Parts: sequence; structure tokens; C-alpha cells
Amino acid sequence: MAEKLKIIPLGGLDEIGKNLTVYEYGGEIIIVDCGMAFPEDDMYGIDSVIPDISYLLKNRARIRGMFITHGHEDHIGAIPHVLRQINIPIYCTRFTAGLINLKLEEFGLVQSTRMTVIDAGQSVRAGKFNVEFIHVNHSIPDSVAFAIHTKMGVVLHTGDFKIDSTPIDGEVIDLARLGELGKEGVLCLCADSTNVERPGYTVSEREVGKTFIRQFRNCSERLIVTTFASNVHRIQQVLDAAAACGRKVAVTGRSMENIMRVSMELGCMKPPRNTLTDISRIKNLPPEKQVIITTGSQGEEMSALYRMAFSTHKQVELGPGDKVIISASAIPGNEVTVSRVINELFRKGVKVIYNKADMLHVSGHACQEELKIIHALTKPKFFVPLHGEQRMLQIHSGLAQQMGIDRNHIAIAENGSVIEITGKTMKINGSVPAGEIFVDGSGVGDVGAVVMRDRKRLAEDGMVVVVMPVASQDGALLAPPEIITRGFIYVKESGDFIHELQNIAFEAAEAVTRKHQRDDGELRGAVKSAVSGYLYKNTRRSPMVIPVVTRL
Amino acid sequence: MAEKLKIIPLGGLDEIGKNLTVYEYGGEIIIVDCGMAFPEDDMYGIDSVIPDISYLLKNRARIRGMFITHGHEDHIGAIPHVLRQINIPIYCTRFTAGLINLKLEEFGLVQSTRMTVIDAGQSVRAGKFNVEFIHVNHSIPDSVAFAIHTKMGVVLHTGDFKIDSTPIDGEVIDLARLGELGKEGVLCLCADSTNVERPGYTVSEREVGKTFIRQFRNCSERLIVTTFASNVHRIQQVLDAAAACGRKVAVTGRSMENIMRVSMELGCMKPPRNTLTDISRIKNLPPEKQVIITTGSQGEEMSALYRMAFSTHKQVELGPGDKVIISASAIPGNEVTVSRVINELFRKGVKVIYNKADMLHVSGHACQEELKIIHALTKPKFFVPLHGEQRMLQIHSGLAQQMGIDRNHIAIAENGSVIEITGKTMKINGSVPAGEIFVDGSGVGDVGAVVMRDRKRLAEDGMVVVVMPVASQDGALLAPPEIITRGFIYVKESGDFIHELQNIAFEAAEAVTRKHQRDDGELRGAVKSAVSGYLYKNTRRSPMVIPVVTRL
Repeated sequence: MAEKLKIIPLGGLDEIGKNLTVYEYGGEIIIVDCGMAFPEDDMYGIDSVIPDISYLLKNRARIRGMFITHGHEDHIGAIPHVLRQINIPIYCTRFTAGLINLKLEEFGLVQSTRMTVIDAGQSVRAGKFNVEFIHVNHSIPDSVAFAIHTKMGVVLHTGDFKIDSTPIDGEVIDLARLGELGKEGVLCLCADSTNVERPGYTVSEREVGKTFIRQFRNCSERLIVTTFASNVHRIQQVLDAAAACGRKVAVTGRSMENIMRVSMELGCMKPPRNTLTDISRIKNLPPEKQVIITTGSQGEEMSALYRMAFSTHKQVELGPGDKVIISASAIPGNEVTVSRVINELFRKGVKVIYNKADMLHVSGHACQEELKIIHALTKPKFFVPLHGEQRMLQIHSGLAQQMGIDRNHIAIAENGSVIEITGKTMKINGSVPAGEIFVDGSGVGDVGAVVMRDRKRLAEDGMVVVVMPVASQDGALLAPPEIITRGFIYVKESGDFIHELQNIAFEAAEAVTRKHQRDDGELRGAVKSAVSGYLYKNTRRSPMVIPVVTRL
Repeated sequence: MAEKLKIIPLGGLDEIGKNLTVYEYGGEIIIVDCGMAFPEDDMYGIDSVIPDISYLLKNRARIRGMFITHGHEDHIGAIPHVLRQINIPIYCTRFTAGLINLKLEEFGLVQSTRMTVIDAGQSVRAGKFNVEFIHVNHSIPDSVAFAIHTKMGVVLHTGDFKIDSTPIDGEVIDLARLGELGKEGVLCLCADSTNVERPGYTVSEREVGKTFIRQFRNCSERLIVTTFASNVHRIQQVLDAAAACGRKVAVTGRSMENIMRVSMELGCMKPPRNTLTDISRIKNLPPEKQVIITTGSQGEEMSALYRMAFSTHKQVELGPGDKVIISASAIPGNEVTVSRVINELFRKGVKVIYNKADMLHVSGHACQEELKIIHALTKPKFFVPLHGEQRMLQIHSGLAQQMGIDRNHIAIAENGSVIEITGKTMKINGSVPAGEIFVDGSGVGDVGAVVMRDRKRLAEDGMVVVVMPVASQDGALLAPPEIITRGFIYVKESGDFIHELQNIAFEAAEAVTRKHQRDDGELRGAVKSAVSGYLYKNTRRSPMVIPVVTRL
């Protein structure tokens, strides 16, 4: 039998992240990334979504390590959930390790976890794999691609990346190494598809810094700047612009404070001397000497900016004389909440600078021309588009074909697809379980389709409970049915209607109990049907009707 | 006392439409527009949102008429709800009347409604108001602005508009008349603020027609085109492009069919000869001779395009060899659903042309330079920015000040604000009730804050009902508490947990009933608190806990 390399994306090929890719060779497994996703609007009550890892649990003995490309939630967010079930050694760069550690602390997993820090440019052996860390540009420091060396050949897994020729940390993506690998021969390229719909190039992070200088100069207002907490280079540029314009900087918002602390400890962020100060102390300065960096760029309800906008922030009160700069674009689905915050700030008389007014954000992902460069440099034999919704994967496939790859050498997979590569061929050979596991409170996976369907139903029209105490002996109702509703109508103003419902339930119940004294199922069915019918006829709504029969 | 003109926006100054503006002069009232809004994501189960009209009900005797600028839902959607309570004569243009009639038919209000069709260029008297209809360009035919003439002066209410120099119906917005009014003297301008954040000019509708020609030419696929059903000129251009390229056109989707029928009857749409055919008959033609026009440009779950994408449309099955053109941009909040449909089409092998790939949509609203032209032509003494969220109103105020209006002559209102204009001054003088009335099923206004809060709670974590039959005499429990849950956990896999809950409830109940035999309130409170505490401790969730005590 020919030697095979398997690539199994357990997440990342859908609408919202949770990246996790399995590589299998010679009976051994490594995992690249282990992310979570934020719930979609119709996932009521869900806190986060993680990949189904039953395949990993089943094959735990064969797993040699987990490699993390960078520290964004959609690449590290599921690590604690996986580690609680399988103790896998983690390999990642220094800053990524710092962020993972914040999570491990939260879940009490620091002691039990084996984490090894690897610098870009170095390699690490894990079973039959030799994994080389290659520096890339992205919207978080210390991001890497992996060149996964096996006896069969090299797979290049880009992770999230862009090509930034003027990055803030001075390190351009290691194109030279990618070119070398291309010359030596790349068996398969697995690449980021996030921005494949956009022509041209992604703008350099440095351009946003120019906007900051422009906005900070000749400005008499106090400045409040919000961005993604993990965008360390963006925050570095805020610090630099503040120092250049003679302002001090204070920070508020838990995730921002945590990540900035880690960044500075690890040397990823270098505040100019005497620039940082405490949020409680910055107030003593005149407005034109202040910059406050805060969370809330997506309008999140618990964030510091949201609380400032709605006057519930303890330390910062906004009004005329303040200028808020939102250095981010709204992630699809968040537009409305971001809008609400902006409107509320305007209502307070705050000047707001957001994406419609200036160049305040650049993407962290490669556009079409950058992707072409990676294809041209690596000249892979096979290609798997990763990190994207179906349309992006297909568009990326089209781009790869333009770059000379044969359509038969490209796999457009679904989550769970088993992509098999021999030296000569590539095919999708079946699939393993892959899906969305819901995290709700402390429960992982106990909320499934049935519960979600009920929540949706309850959310739409509320519910009506009909309680019927029944005599065990003769099946007679011991009291009139009691009606309890929630989320359906305002009961205090609907006395007559509730009374009528009670009558309907009573009649339906009587009709059954007279004939079939002991059939609770039939009783429930008859009452449910009568009550539901009456409700729909009179309100055009379908609340969940729950008949409860208590035999006494 | 000086003569006064009052302007009271009852809707339109918030996040999502439902435009309704009240004009009062000399003790008489006219209404401009009467729209609904679509519910936001957190308005669980709500079908639509309409303005609070208690002010109109209270002043019904003084109302002289309702004037409608155009036929979009956010300007006509609440008409039936208002007419059911107050029979007000309606004045509007021909096509707008056609669309309103579709609504009146649905609500059985055709007979009782007095509707008068007025052409652009004509005027109509309503009490002390003389209302002049002025042609404007917008994304629906037969749109007008109103010059509302009173003895105190003229108020120009623009409605939604843009300046299109090459419109499809050949009629440019009547700038000449606006200029004349400006020369004669405009007391107050009330103008559309929707696109005030965008610099420059809105592109002409005609540009989209060029895209259609480019996409239809040399295309061997069957074409499916979707857009807003009310965008009659867009659909006209699809028909024209189809005819020019030798294709026939069929239509599917209820709202599209209805509006096209009305458009053709009223002469707003003129299909080229032998172009339209039936959806059941077009199948007999080769793919390169077919165009199907359909609803679903916003990814709506019940729409024809959605059903085609998910293989539940009865007449149209899509696959390789089909090209879907989405001639619309996603309204904020709809991005995710539109994405889902596009991904599903890609998965079927359909070619999809959407906004990222070509120029497929133009706005119907004026951008900054167009707004400046209107200000320059009308030279109003006072200004009220309408149709916009708070930030847009303020930006529009800034633009007006640039154009020479004094800040004290501008009113940035909230819904319900009473704007009072004398000949010399303008001020906001108090407010009248204005808010969101929820329509749910056949109920209007019966779902309020309490019900919504319960729905939100039920959606988040579901509910747990605890039923306790209790002896009237001695307060003893007659049976163990019964536990019913929905939307909380999957009961079939949680037998032990439910059993434990039953014990917790039993113990809490016993402790109370032993001491206070007849206090149901205390019993409920104790059980609720014990069960809620146990649930949170063990699951970190807070389902709604509903104790039901039945005395027997």
C-alpha cells in the first residue's frame, strides 16, 4: 500500500472560525490550532462553539503534539476544553504562549500542561513530523506558518497571514524561506482564504499609525481609542503617537489590560518612556494630554466603551470635549451594536472618528495578489484552501488554478473531510465526526439540537403551562386546570383571556377523562391541541403549550 | 401669541425606520408617511415594529390627511394599523397607491379607505395646509417630496431621495422647482439623512444596467437575478438586458410577482415585447435563453432564492450551469444570512455574482454633495434632519452649518420631540409619547417590556417548572414535586440530575410547609430560590424557574 498523508480539518471550513486541522502520517497525528467560535445570532444562550473532537479522543494515543500558529481566539479558544480531556504537549511562539497561559490559568490547567516555546526559524520534532516555525505578518505578534516536514514531503500550513512590507515589529513575513521551500519542493499548501474575495493587496499596519498622528495632532480633546485587545502593534502605534504628541496613556478594560501586560512582559510592546499611567491618575492631566485605550471596538455590551457610552463606567465619563477613535471595522453581525454605541456617543456630544471618516483599520489577512505570491513562491503540488466559508474556498481554488495547479490536485473540503495525499494523487476519502459543540455556562456539549429548538420556540412566542391535578382512581379533575404563561402575553392585562383558556383546557380534559380515565398521554394530547388551536386562532401565535398531568 | 408651526417626528429618528412625521399649524394636523420597521435581533418573536400613535388618537379630530412620499415599507407599512383606528384620507402618487392597495386588500380596508392619487407637480389642499407634490429620484418609482405651504411659510419635506441625472424613467428630480421655492423663500427644510456619512455623489441607477449587459452577454448559463421587489427600475433593466441578449424572463416569489403586476398595470414597468413568460414554461428554453427574476436578495428564509439554494423550491432546481446575480447589498444585520445563501449556492456548483465581484447595486439616498445641492437650492431658514440615526442627524447638522445655516436654526430631534417654529425662532418644546409598538401575530402592542424580558430569559437558558400539589388543610405535599424543563438540558440524558432537582425542591418545600401551612408565596419563593441556586452552582446557567403550587 502506498504511503499516505492525511489532512483532516475539524473546523475552520464554515462560517465562524474554530480552526483545528489534523495531520496524520505514519500512524501518528499532530494538531494545528485549536480555536473556538462566537455563537451566531440563532444560537440562543450559547457562550461559545468549539469543534467536535471525538476523532481526537478516539485516536488520543497517536497524537504527538498541538502546534499553534498565533494567539487569536479562533485559533486557541478551545485549548482548555481539549486539554481537560487529552493532555497534549503544546508548541508555539512566545507571545502565543503568553496568551494561552492566561486561559490555562483561568481553567486551572497551568500545572498539568506541557508547553514548549519555539522561535520562528526553529524546528521541533514530534513523532514522525518535523515542524518548522516560519515568521508571518498578521494582526497579532509572533504569528507563524508551519512547514510540516515528513518523509513523504513538506506541507506548508500558512495559518492566518498577510504580507506586510513595513510591519511595526520590523519583521517582514519570511518570504525567502518560503521560496527556498518552494525550490526544494512543497508537497501541499494549506492556506488562509479569509480575504480571497478581495483583489489587490492588504494595506500595511503602518498606515493606521499615520491616521493616529493626524488625529492626535492639533487636537484639544481628550482622546479615547478602542481597538482589538490582541492587536498589539496597533496599540503600540497608539502609544507612539501619544508620545509624539506629548500625551500620556491609560488603559481600561480587562482583556486590554491583560494582553498589554503580557505583551510588555514578553517585549512585544514597548511603551515610550513616561507614557503609560494609571486610569485613576490620568484625570489630573488636562484633556489635551490624555489618551485612554479601551476595549469595546465591536460594541460588546460588557465592554468599557459601551459602559462609557451608556454612563455606567466607573472611572470615565464622556461628553463634549472628548474624541473617541474606533480603530476597527465591525465584524459581520456586529454592525448594529457598534452603531448603537456610536449613536449614544454622538448623543453625549462626543466627537467620534470611525471607519467612515478616516483610515482606521487594516485587515490581517492576505488579499488576492498576496495569495498569488505565496503560490508562486511555494509552487505546491497539491493545494487545500483553509480558513474560509465555502465560497471563499472555491474562489481560492480558482486562484490556485490560475497559478497553475491542476483542479484534481485541489481539495475543497468540509469540516471532517479526510483528505488523503499519496505522492501522486489527492482525494477526499470519507469523513470523521466534525461539528459544532456548544458551550453554555459550565456545560460543554449538553445543549444540542432539541434544547436549541425549544429555546428558539420559547424565544419566538413564549410558553403556556397547563397544570391538571387528576384523581388516580376515577381520572376526574381535582381542580380546574391552572394556566401559567411566560413570554406570551402580559397576564395582568389579559385576565379574561386566561380565564377563557382555562375553560378550553377544562372542556378538553373532561371530554377525555370521562372516557379514558387512565390515559395521561391522551389527556395531554387533547389539552395541548385544544389550547394551541385556540391560541393560534385568537393571536396568530404559537407559544409552546406544556400540559402537566399530576395523578394524586 | 405668535403663530406657530409644529413638527413632531413620531418615528424615523432611530435605528430602523418606521417613518412618520406630524405637521401642525393653526390647530390642524397632517401626517407625512406611516411606516413600519423590521424587528432587531433582540426583539424575539416580533413580526414588525410600528410607531406609537397615541398622540394621533388623542388628536384625531384635528387630522386633515396622510401624505405618503413613496411606497417602501418603512414609509407605508403601518398604514393599516393606523387606519383601523382612525380613518384618515390618504394622498399619494399612482404607484404608491398601488402598493398601499395591496396592503389594504390584505387587511380588508379597501372599501373604508379614502385614497386620492396626486401626480407630481400637482397640489392638494388639506385644511390649512396646501401640499405640493414634487418629483424626486429614489429606488422606487413615483417618489415625491412635499412642499407644505402654510400661511406662515413653506416647509420642504424631501422624503427619501437622490439626485439621478440619468434615471431609468427619464425624469430627473425636479431641481428647478426646488430652486423656485428657494427663491420664494423656504421656512424649513426637513431632509433625508440616510447617506450623509458618505462623501460625493450616489451613482446613477443606470450604471447597474451596464453591469447586467456585461454579465448577460456571452454567457451560456441560465441566469437567476435577485433584487428588492420594489426596485422597479432595477427590474426594468433586467428585462431590457434580457431582451437585448435574446433571453426570456420568468418571475418567482410572491412579493416580486405582486409588485411587478402592479407596476405593469400602472405603466411603471414596460417589459419589452415577448420577453416575459411563465415560470413553468421557461424551462422548455435552453439555459442561455432564460432569466429568472426572484426574491431573496437579503437571504430571507422564506424567499424563493433561499428555497432554491436549499433545494426546497418547487419549480427551480439550481446547479452547475446556473449563474445567480445578487443585485443588492446586505442591509446591516443581514450579512450572515446572505452569506449562508451564497455559500450554499457555491456548494451546489452555481456561479454567484455578488457585490464583491461587480457593480451590482447603487443606493437610493443622496450623499453629501447631493444634500449640499438641495441646501443650496432651497436656502431654508430652519432645518430639521430626518430619517437617520443620531450620528447621521448630527453630521447632517454639520453639513447644513457649512451651507450657512445657523446652529440655532437647526433642530436635532428625538422621536416624539415637538419642534416649534415661529417666524423667527425654532426650539424643541417638550415631547409627546413616541416609541416602539410591537406587532406579534395578530396582536398589536400587547407584547411589551415584561413579555420581551421573559422571552429573552427563556431564549438564553430555557425554563424549569416545579409542580407541587399541596393539601389545602395541612399544607402537606400530596406528591413529590414534578420537574418539567424546556430549552435547558436534554432531559433524556439527564435523569439523575432531574431526580436530584426533585429532591432539592422537595426538601425546600417540606421545610416551609411544616412551618407555614398556608403560605403559597413563601413556598414558591423557597423552592424557586433552592432550585435556582442548585442549577447555577451545577451548570452556571440561570433558566427561568417557575414554581407552581396547586392547593387541593
